[in-house]
Parts: sequence; C-alpha cells; structure tokens
Amino acid sequence: MSRFMNEKYAGLEAYTPGEQPRDQQYIKLNTNESPFPPSPGVLSAVNAAELEKLRLYCDPACTELRAKLAELYGVKPENVYLANGSDDILNFAFMAFGGDGVVYPAISYGFYSVFAALHGVEAEEIPLEADFGIDAEKYCGRNKLVVIANPNAPTGLSISLDDVERLLQRNPNHVVLIDEAYVDFGGESCLPLLKRYDNLLVVQTFSKSRSLAGARLGFAFGSEAVIADLEKIKYSTNPYNVNRLTQIAGIAALEQDEYYKENCRRIMENRRYTADALKALGFTVLDSKANFVFAKSERIDGEALYLELKRRGVLVRHFSREEICQFNRITIGSREEMERFIETVSEILEEIA
Amino acid sequence: MSRFMNEKYAGLEAYTPGEQPRDQQYIKLNTNESPFPPSPGVLSAVNAAELEKLRLYCDPACTELRAKLAELYGVKPENVYLANGSDDILNFAFMAFGGDGVVYPAISYGFYSVFAALHGVEAEEIPLEADFGIDAEKYCGRNKLVVIANPNAPTGLSISLDDVERLLQRNPNHVVLIDEAYVDFGGESCLPLLKRYDNLLVVQTFSKSRSLAGARLGFAFGSEAVIADLEKIKYSTNPYNVNRLTQIAGIAALEQDEYYKENCRRIMENRRYTADALKALGFTVLDSKANFVFAKSERIDGEALYLELKRRGVLVRHFSREEICQFNRITIGSREEMERFIETVSEILEEIA
Repeated sequence: MSRFMNEKYAGLEAYTPGEQPRDQQYIKLNTNESPFPPSPGVLSAVNAAELEKLRLYCDPACTELRAKLAELYGVKPENVYLANGSDDILNFAFMAFGGDGVVYPAISYGFYSVFAALHGVEAEEIPLEADFGIDAEKYCGRNKLVVIANPNAPTGLSISLDDVERLLQRNPNHVVLIDEAYVDFGGESCLPLLKRYDNLLVVQTFSKSRSLAGARLGFAFGSEAVIADLEKIKYSTNPYNVNRLTQIAGIAALEQDEYYKENCRRIMENRRYTADALKALGFTVLDSKANFVFAKSERIDGEALYLELKRRGVLVRHFSREEICQFNRITIGSREEMERFIETVSEILEEIA
Repeated sequence: MSRFMNEKYAGLEAYTPGEQPRDQQYIKLNTNESPFPPSPGVLSAVNAAELEKLRLYCDPACTELRAKLAELYGVKPENVYLANGSDDILNFAFMAFGGDGVVYPAISYGFYSVFAALHGVEAEEIPLEADFGIDAEKYCGRNKLVVIANPNAPTGLSISLDDVERLLQRNPNHVVLIDEAYVDFGGESCLPLLKRYDNLLVVQTFSKSRSLAGARLGFAFGSEAVIADLEKIKYSTNPYNVNRLTQIAGIAALEQDEYYKENCRRIMENRRYTADALKALGFTVLDSKANFVFAKSERIDGEALYLELKRRGVLVRHFSREEICQFNRITIGSREEMERFIETVSEILEEIA
C-alpha cells in the first residue's frame, strides 16, 4: 500500500481470479468458460461498419439490448439492468443495498466477502450444511441484504424456488439477491417471482451459457425501484460501462437463443458423462446444476490432484479453504476435453496405486 | 430511491452524460468524440478469430496492452494502469486517494463532484480566475487529493508544467491527479515529471485522440506504489474490467500512432478555423488546447443559441451553471462539419439581428 492510500483499505484482500498460465497449452477447465464459440450471428454482427462507429460513445442506457432482454424474459425494460459483467452488478448491489449488512453462505462465490470489505458492509457468513447444501431457514428474518448463488459455486448445488420465496417473504424489507450465473445448465430461475416481490434482484451473465466471458456482459432483473437504484450508482461511477461492441454482441446473441440452449444441453450431457466417470473411479461428486462439477477422492489429496493435473496440461480449480480442500472444481468443456480429463485422472490414480 | 437503498446515497446526484437524441440526424458536436474512425489496423485486428475467443475471459492484467503503452510512453509496465474508460480510473482514484478530502476547480469535469459525493470524500471546489484560468498557488499545501484537468474542461485552457510541478512539490504527501483526457490536441503532458514525483497520477484516454470512445479504454501513469493501489481496488471490484475486444483494439491503435497524430493535427487546424470564424462573428473564444472550443457572444444568450442550433440539427453542449451559462462548448469535428456549424451560427445571428 502506498503512503497515499486511504487507510480504510489497509486490510482489504482483493479477489484472486482463476490462473491463466501462459507457459504451455492447457485443457482449461478452471474458470467455467464455455467450450463453444459465440453464435454465428455474433461473429457477423461485429463488422467493419460497427468498428468504424467505435469513435462514438456507446448508448449508456443500452436501449436496444435492454428491450431485447425484456422481451425474451417477459419483463419490462424498466426491470432490466446491464453492466460490465455481473461482478459490476454485485459490486453496485453491495453498495446500494448493504446499508444494514449482508449475509451469505460461508462457501460460495469468493468475491462476496471482497465486496463487503471494500464497502465496509458488515458481513455474516453462514456455514454450509454437512452435505454442502444451504438451509434457507438460516437466512430468514436477518434484516440485512441476503446474497445466495443458485446454483451455488463451487458446489453446484441448488436451492428450490420454494426456498427462494421463503427468503423473499421473510426478509421483506431487504433485497434478496439471487446470483444465477449458472442457472442455464439445469437450474430453475426465480425470475417468475419478480411479479410478486419487489425485494428480489436476480443476477445473470452472458459469460457462461452465452459464450461471451471475454465481452463482459452481466444483467439483472428487479423491481423498477431497485433497478433505478442500481442505475443511480452506475451514473455516479461509469455511465458508459457497457461498451459498444459488447452491446452489439449481446443483441446478436439473444437473436440466436436456440443455439445457446443446444450448447447448454450438450454441456449437461458432458456433465453427466464426467460425473459418472468420476464416480466410477471412486470419486464423490456433488449433484451439480452448473457448468462444473465439484469432486473429491479418498485415493488422492485434492491439492495433489490439482497439481498433478496441471503438470500434465489440465487446469482445474482448487480452493485451499479447509472445508473444501479435498475437492476440485472442474469446468465442463467439450466431450473430447472431458474424455482427456478422465483419462488423465485415471492415469494419475493408477500411478499412485 | 427504493426503500432498500443505503441512506447515505439519499442526496447523491448522478452525472448527466451529453444528450444523444435519436429523433433526427444531427451534426454531433456535443460529446468531444473524434470525427475520424479508428485506424485501419483496429478494423482488421477485431476479426472472426478474435470474436471466437470471446468465450474466454480476457486477461485481467492487460499484459500486452500494458507493455505496448509502457514502450510508447517510455515507462515501465508497472507504471501503467488500464481501465474501462478513464471514468473508471477517476472513480477508483477518488476511493483510493481521497481519504483526506479532495480539491478541484469549481468549473471542470462535472463528474469530480459526483465521485466525491458517492464515496463520501469531502470536496473543496476552488473558483476559476476571472479569465477562467486556474491559479495553481491556490491548490498548494492543501493536504488532500488534488485533481486538475489539463487542459481543463469545458474551458479548454491549460496550466504550465511549472505549475504542475509546483502542485507536486507543495502537496508531497497527497496524490496530484492530472486528468489529461484532452492533452493530445496541443497540450503538454506532465508525464516526464513521473520520474521525480511519486505522488503524480496522470490519467489519459483512448476516447478522444484515438477515436475509441465506444470501446471504453482509459489509462494512467503513476509510481509503482500508486498503480498497485489502483490495481487493488480493481481486483476488489471487477478484475476483468477491460474486455477482450477493447484490449485488441487498443493494441492495434498503438501500432498506428502516426495515423492518430495526423488526426490530431487536422483537429487543431479545424479548431483554429472554428475559433477564427467565431471571433469574426463577434464571439469571445477561450484559447483552447482541447478538441473543443468554449465560446460566447453578446449578441445571443448561450442557452438560446444552443436551442436554436439544436432545432437546426447541430448539437453542442450547454451548461446551465451561472458562471458559464453564456458559453457553449463546441466539439471540433471535420472541416465540413465546422463549416456547417459556422454557417448555421451565422444564419441564427442574422435572423435575430
């Protein structure tokens, strides 16, 4: 920290993104990216004519993209918010709605605790249950912002819509933020509850199911008043936060929704293949509804497996936190990638047997 | 404000971007965009192969772009910071370095007061001199963050490097942020002072001289420790804040620096043409070093001229603040656009004569 830095950030520990080593080619199953390219329409929409227009500022209101999203998801444009990746939305939501503190699961997206620390939002972390699930009852009547990833990361486990509704009913004076980054891989979105609950904020992203991680495009649904609050924060930090080409890519992606739905189906098939194969090798695999699986084996230490896979050119994500240090989070890639992954795991287990 | 919003934002007034009306085609001289497209290299760099890679996250460290900028500007990569537009950098700098408050000119970029209000940074605004200039002496020994746009907006007036050095020497324990968004149009960058002052932060952008307003790419130079502080804030909010295509466009733009230098020369010529023509019509025109001029006439009220120009299809920017409400800020576009602008002003003046 420089001698000029505001002292309130002295203890702040920033988020660590998944590693992106450049020393060799890896089978990259560590950051939950899609193995499929963006849809053909995205490739043709970002053309020379649009590139020439880069000299002009983008539309800060994202008018067209917002209207398209509203249409596809059956809400009004006033219920839609867009930002530079869903991290941007989470950051703004912690600022806007964390005045009375925040509660979230102790094991979840690692960024929640960073946002809380950055903005001085008092954070309460609730341990997961023994089966790594979330007991919604423990998040009821807390009188603070509630943040739940559904499906949760890195477990992949989901909670029911009944549970989400209970959270909304029993935290009526605080926002309940449901982070649905991974919802398109077999989860159930709580968006239908928006009509009845003005305290719901549903956050999604184009990074996973829509193959646009590198374009940075997150979106959220909420009541008009909640969205207006987020807009106020946006217009007080960076009104043009969604750039011109990303808006165009997003619009084009929405026009080929069937392409992405088919990709999600293939990823779910590959997930089943991967989970079954891991189980056949003796792994414990949680019942994931996301584009990754979370798995451990009693035959090899979690970190040892991660390191051995990396040495052999396969990147997965390992977390050192004690409760989950025996697990690895494995992104579901193409069928070929998952076969290579299973082969590599088999080799490692044979060698240490 | 919703009933869920943190009360500390109750009084917050967000920034108002320049209007972007869609009711007709305008000659758009209101948001300081470049009349020239990005360089040919940018158009070819953002190709199908790069679009396919959008499925992958971007490099959060912006390694290649950072190295290129460091090389072109003669500093080390550790002295370079990149973000999603220079607003992102200003926002982070107010967070990081505003712990003891901030001082800036009362008439300058309108966003400074918004950042201060958003982050609860105590702000002191110092009135401009009678000639709209900045008296550096008034910003010395203030024991708080100093923020000066050089050239200033919307006046276009600049301060000397001697003045910048005085600010650095006489505020040795606080960051002096020099916002050089408009420096490439005849201003003098204070970057050479970086070697001697660890409290200097120089902020620039690809939006104006490099024709990439819609791509959102800001950059800054500072001592290693100052840049590390900004990185810490970035990795605590949105590590992937510069998207993949913008990084590629930025790299390609830097490879054709001569193209942009030539564009800047043409804009400076057009600025001289515009200023001379306005003076010939009786306007007072401040001595701008930016890609806009700031002008008023005793023959017509500032707001009346703005409205009359808009009615005739020419957009300029008017600010209602009393001290400058007789002025309009006119972006310098192509020669043809400026000729049309001057013709339209002449017509308006003739009609009211």
